[in-house]
Amino acid sequence: MATIQDVARYAHVGAATVSRVLSGNGYVKAETREKVRRAIEALNYTPNEMARNLFYQRSGIVAVIVPRISNPFFAEFVNDAEAAFCAAGYQTMISNTWSERNYELRYLDMLRRRMVDGIIFASHTLDVAQYQNIQRPIVALDRDLGPNIPSISVDHEEGGRLAAMALIEAGCRNVLQFRGSEVVRTMSHLRHETFERVMLSHGVACRNCVMEWNSMSYEYYAEATERMMKENPDVDGIFAVDAIAMNALRYAAEQGIRVPKDLKIVSYDGTGVARLASPSLTMICQPIQRLAEECVRVMMELIQGNAAETKHIRIPVRIQRGASTAKEVIS
Amino acid sequence: MATIQDVARYAHVGAATVSRVLSGNGYVKAETREKVRRAIEALNYTPNEMARNLFYQRSGIVAVIVPRISNPFFAEFVNDAEAAFCAAGYQTMISNTWSERNYELRYLDMLRRRMVDGIIFASHTLDVAQYQNIQRPIVALDRDLGPNIPSISVDHEEGGRLAAMALIEAGCRNVLQFRGSEVVRTMSHLRHETFERVMLSHGVACRNCVMEWNSMSYEYYAEATERMMKENPDVDGIFAVDAIAMNALRYAAEQGIRVPKDLKIVSYDGTGVARLASPSLTMICQPIQRLAEECVRVMMELIQGNAAETKHIRIPVRIQRGASTAKEVIS
Repeated sequence: MATIQDVARYAHVGAATVSRVLSGNGYVKAETREKVRRAIEALNYTPNEMARNLFYQRSGIVAVIVPRISNPFFAEFVNDAEAAFCAAGYQTMISNTWSERNYELRYLDMLRRRMVDGIIFASHTLDVAQYQNIQRPIVALDRDLGPNIPSISVDHEEGGRLAAMALIEAGCRNVLQFRGSEVVRTMSHLRHETFERVMLSHGVACRNCVMEWNSMSYEYYAEATERMMKENPDVDGIFAVDAIAMNALRYAAEQGIRVPKDLKIVSYDGTGVARLASPSLTMICQPIQRLAEECVRVMMELIQGNAAETKHIRIPVRIQRGASTAKEVIS
Repeated sequence: MATIQDVARYAHVGAATVSRVLSGNGYVKAETREKVRRAIEALNYTPNEMARNLFYQRSGIVAVIVPRISNPFFAEFVNDAEAAFCAAGYQTMISNTWSERNYELRYLDMLRRRMVDGIIFASHTLDVAQYQNIQRPIVALDRDLGPNIPSISVDHEEGGRLAAMALIEAGCRNVLQFRGSEVVRTMSHLRHETFERVMLSHGVACRNCVMEWNSMSYEYYAEATERMMKENPDVDGIFAVDAIAMNALRYAAEQGIRVPKDLKIVSYDGTGVARLASPSLTMICQPIQRLAEECVRVMMELIQGNAAETKHIRIPVRIQRGASTAKEVIS
């Protein structure tokens, strides 16, 4: 396969001149342009995308880093982010972090080396300082990575409040919430802090199950849900992400615990998976598609250098009421 | 930022010589090597990954193309493929095809231009001929893209047979199966053809609901399931992918149709999502992680030029029995 160097040699010009002809950027004499064109034809040269990107110091690639792609929330986030990047003319690179600790550093290095033009971090890394040293496009989902990095999340405080009020209004007196590991601070912790505060202010007992750091597989969710429900047979309300809430529904059905009569459940995220539940779940819905599109929009501003100021965007959540917190029970 | 050309100019050598020094490939005189080293130091040059890849005519990137990342099967497939590629030192690019018809052509072009080193196609494109013209690494999941392209799938015939026998043994006389669109031929059609053949050979009536081409969203699944179940209230057995099977469970619960007493259900895929169902589903499990790892393994052989012959790999399925086809009903 002919390279740009072969074309340059054949046309008796420099490789940079060939690049200029290919890109249409920069002045090249008509006569030289014609020589390059003939060389390209003679050698059957296919312009190499990498060579062109090298010339522009851009890759046309963005990366999205999540804890686990198969987790229902992140599967939808990645799905929608890829579609939005595609519409903006960008290719999407993707990475899990469940298989390797602090894998994010490798991507920061790729960003520095311009293999990717920007990174959306939706992951739960340990070290925030590393992000601060890079003056390149980074957008954070649900994380505060410092004052210079835009962050996007839903209004988790409102989400926690809505969840708490749904269980209180349904008559719960003794609830259990499954919350994320505190090893890494994410904005989603706000919902659990608010949930607990609202519960206590209404005189409702609130126990916490803190999940392991960066563990978001279906297997772990199933195991942790069953263990916690066995250890806490007296709770009358549960607040957890969709997949855990569905495990709770399933465990309750197996044990003859009636939902919502004996146990009320509110789930968080509102993914498509949660909509498969029966009885239907009361859920706090994150508008995942909008979250993804906002991340992509802010990323495009950063890449194009149009970002006026660092943005910290909060998107509203909404509650969708289902049978799992219904007060009037037909049974 | 200093480029490889700046280093070459400073050291009074050619760019190719700098590349050789950086890569450690090819002979460079010790004296020249030292000149390049000093130039790199003086200019604070960071070796550009793109420049290095250009030199090697490789990108270090593979692409995985699926119909919809958020679909539970493809979410797990992408998750596991990314982890396996990561372990092999490759970055994974990902693309949905739900948002654009024949988007695969753009990726074939990227493969031709060496922006990616290989592509796993798990998508349902219309045009197979396009794939045949490229002598570059391609692996197909569940598709026959021609004699020169390795394909990997489970033994769908056995899957269809196991599903049929489970419903027959549970006493079904009148079943409904949800099957993929026939617009594009995929290997997964085999399971539905086998299912129908086994049903008919046992004197069991078998109706078919053919889903729309490339439509795999939760919303569409929910709408199609409810519509078909309304139109076919007399069926006593259902065979469908996990998310449709769960929609059927939910619809049945809402309508007072008892599972498994009035209606038996067998789901296909065995994703983590299906394991959230209650009552538990009898499911035909594709070993998704193994499928992903086989795709990656074959891809690595192709990239490294070690593929002895084109492989067509079939992986066994297994049945996991749940409450949805139980014969003895406690109710």
